[in-house]
Parts: sequence; structure tokens; C-alpha cells
Amino acid sequence: MNKKDIINQIKIRKSFLCIGLDTDLERIPKHLLQYEDPIFEFNKQIIDSTKDFCVAFKINTAFYESYGSSGWNSMEKTLDYIPENILSIADAKRGDIGNTSKKYAEAFFKNLNFDAITLSAYMGIETLTHYNSYENKWCIILALTSNVGSSDFQTVVDHEGVPLYERVIKSSLKLKRNDNIMFVVGATNEENYDNIRKIAPDNFLLVPGVGAQGGNLETVSNKLINKDCGILINSSRSIIYSGTDEHFAKCARESAKALQNDMQRILKNNSII
Amino acid sequence: MNKKDIINQIKIRKSFLCIGLDTDLERIPKHLLQYEDPIFEFNKQIIDSTKDFCVAFKINTAFYESYGSSGWNSMEKTLDYIPENILSIADAKRGDIGNTSKKYAEAFFKNLNFDAITLSAYMGIETLTHYNSYENKWCIILALTSNVGSSDFQTVVDHEGVPLYERVIKSSLKLKRNDNIMFVVGATNEENYDNIRKIAPDNFLLVPGVGAQGGNLETVSNKLINKDCGILINSSRSIIYSGTDEHFAKCARESAKALQNDMQRILKNNSII
Repeated sequence: MNKKDIINQIKIRKSFLCIGLDTDLERIPKHLLQYEDPIFEFNKQIIDSTKDFCVAFKINTAFYESYGSSGWNSMEKTLDYIPENILSIADAKRGDIGNTSKKYAEAFFKNLNFDAITLSAYMGIETLTHYNSYENKWCIILALTSNVGSSDFQTVVDHEGVPLYERVIKSSLKLKRNDNIMFVVGATNEENYDNIRKIAPDNFLLVPGVGAQGGNLETVSNKLINKDCGILINSSRSIIYSGTDEHFAKCARESAKALQNDMQRILKNNSII
Repeated sequence: MNKKDIINQIKIRKSFLCIGLDTDLERIPKHLLQYEDPIFEFNKQIIDSTKDFCVAFKINTAFYESYGSSGWNSMEKTLDYIPENILSIADAKRGDIGNTSKKYAEAFFKNLNFDAITLSAYMGIETLTHYNSYENKWCIILALTSNVGSSDFQTVVDHEGVPLYERVIKSSLKLKRNDNIMFVVGATNEENYDNIRKIAPDNFLLVPGVGAQGGNLETVSNKLINKDCGILINSSRSIIYSGTDEHFAKCARESAKALQNDMQRILKNNSII
């Protein structure tokens, strides 16, 4: 998907919701455990019931890797099941050098055909170039995350007065296809939003941390939204686990719909739709 | 494996060599492609032929993930084949928050039973605690890597005059089991070695970049070695691809043996053996 496709979907669906598929055998409804592949069955029903209200699905690779090759298989099936006009994100947070990053890019963009992958730039900007060479594929780079530990390094100011997250954003924007770059910006770092939009006015931001981690949808959205919308707000557990019995898919639909409803209002208020 | 076990193996094998299994279908000898699982067959023969000369095998997860669930399966089989007294490292460079890091720790330490995993601390020290809670398992944290891009962020000095890699090392050493922590320190950053040994005198260091990337075994080892040896020097392609035909395993053995021979001399000169 290119940027125009994403913006179109946001306008059509009146939503900038990303749903995180952090699918955990210990948390899915018990009746699904009788299926051959309970993880895929859960995801299939979640996707069916929520796809009208979101523009992206984010697969958190940790949850699939924890079940070994069978988990990886469930991930492949889930990815194939995500509709083509919805952005598919591998939340993999990979980050490695040259030949290794080439292999990760092949794994997620070629063999698995995800639209986007989350990446860590700790090892330097050169580690992002292989991913960045794929057309219509997205690098979503960790900038300023929503967890407590984000202050350990990301907000530490360097000798030039620049916090690390800002250096990461500025350096990343020197990559060739810099319009295919998003940044992860947590919903709990409001004091840095003006600065982030100053250095990356046009990039999409993937925003975790609304709800469970304390971020407020309205405040966060109104501060980060740009002319194209420019934000994808992620919600994982508060949608997919909003029901715990055989009605779980309907509950997830209701939770997604409620968020979409709020987003529609925000999009209108900001004259995007 | 605990620290004593690793030191014992170094003394028994007179080696601090780590062999990286960056196994690539495009680079392994053609005759192996007729096997049902060519990747595992290659690894099996490499392990058999080199295990006398090394103390660790490092599986680079990117190469396995690039073949999807079947690649993950080859990784599982390879891991099971690594002898118990040799340290098994998942070179995965994972780094994510709370619940997700718990799942990665389960994936690599519980379900796969690796002895060690490489990790990125960009998201903060709290992201390492789940891995750190496993007894006799090792966190190998990215500090100062051997690639050109390491100067983008890792060596940038902060407002207190501390380079990022130093902040990462110092913060990591505040973790509970800080004797089960190693750091990745590239073989191309000699000017920082005195500082690294000052702040982490006792920790093992995993050192990539000798050979192919220009680091010199003798110089690097003599500068970083400590009373317990304290270094694992990694070599991947220059060992596993030293032969290209049906004699590849023998060639790999010769390459590993040559390195072990040099290491034996270094260990003697430093009175470790």
C-alpha cells in the first residue's frame, strides 16, 4: 500500500484505528481450544468482526514465535486472511546489520508479504536501507515509545541538546523513500508532540498506549493529527479481549465500533472528512 | 549454562570461539539441496565438524525466518542438535515492552531452550527484566556494534559526556542477575575498549567483526580479555562458507581449528590456561 491508499482507506472507513492481534492461547475463549489452530480461528473471527472499523491490523510476532513453527504458521494464515485494502503490520521490532537485515526484509516483505514492519534503529540508519528499498512497503521506526523505560535512553539529551528520539527521526528521514516511513510515538509522551510534528510534519505515526497505558484518544489525536490524518492509533487487548466467551467477536466489534465512532468525530473536527 | 560452565568449557576446549550459523540456501553447497531439510543438513555437518573447536554456536534468526515456518522448524532442529556443553545463542536482537518481552523470553528460553539471546535495549531496561528472570540463561545486550552505523547513535555523547553505549551498559548492570549479562562489542571499535572494560570489567563480551569486517583477533582479544577470558569471538561466514563443495564440512573444520589454535596461544599468553 502507498500513502495515498492509506489516506483513502482512512476517509472511506472514517477511522484511523489499528487493531493489534496479540493473540495468546491463555486469554482466548476456552471453546476455541478445540479447533485445530485456535490462534488462527480467534484471529479470523476478530478480523471478520472488526474489519469495517479499522484501517490496519498489527501482528505482534512475539505471540506467534512463542508457539514455535506452529505459531509462525498461524501468523502466515492470519496475514493471508487480512483484507488487501487494510494495512498489515508485522510488529517485529527487528534491527540488525547488512546481510541479516536483508534476510529480515525478505522474511516479512517478500515471503510473508506484510505491508509494514516495526524496526529498531539502535544499530544505525544503514540497518534500515534494505527494508526501505521495497516499493510500497513501510518501515515503522521506534522513536518515542509509551512505556516507562522510554526515558532510559530515548529522551536523553545529547551534547547538542538533541534527545535521542529526535536524532533517530531526523536520521531516518534521510533515507531514500522517506515518505514510506512511519514512527512509533507513544500516547503517553504528550510534552514531546509539538517537537515531533515539527521535525516530522508529514509522516504517519503509529501510536500505541491509548486506553490501557493511560493515553487519551481525543487529546493525543488532536495534538498529532496532520492534513492527511497522519496517525494510526493502535489498540490491542482492549479490543480483542473485550469479550471472554463465545460472544467475543461481537464484543470486539462493539469495542472497535466505539473507537471508530470517536475517530469519525475527530476526523470531522479536523476537516479530514 | 552458568558462568562457571562457560569458563570451564573455554579452558577444556582452549577456545573462545563462537560460530555463527547464518545459513543461507543460496550459499550452501548445491548437493545439499536434495535433502528434505538442506538447512538442517548443512548445520548438522557444520556442528559435527567444528564442535571440538568452539564454545558457542550462534543461530541468526533472520536466516531461518526468511524461510517462514519451515525455516523456524530447521532452527528448532538445529538447536536440538547443538551439544549441551556448548552455549547456544539466539541472535534475535529482540526488544519490546512488558507482556511482549515475556512472550519472546518464553519463545527462546522456554519453548526453544536457547542458553542466550541477543537483545536491543532501545525501549529501556525494563524491557530486559523478563529475560533476566530466567536462571542460567543469558541476555546479550547490544552495546557498541561493529558496523559503520554504530556511530549514528551508539557513540553519540550525551549532555553528561556519556556515550549512549556506556549508558546502555551501566543501566543494564543494574538488572538483578547482572552476572548473566553479556554485551555485544564490535571488533572495530578499539578506541572504546579501555572504557568498556572499566565499566564492565567482569562481564563476558560477544565480539563480532573479526576477519570479514576488519577486526584483528590478536589485538582485539588482548585488549578485551579479562581474568575469566570474558570474550567470545564470533565468526560466521568465514568458517561456515570456507568450502563450497562436498568437502565444505572439512574446510569449516580447518578454519575453526586455525582460529582455535590462535585462541589457545592467546589464552596461554594471558595465563588463562
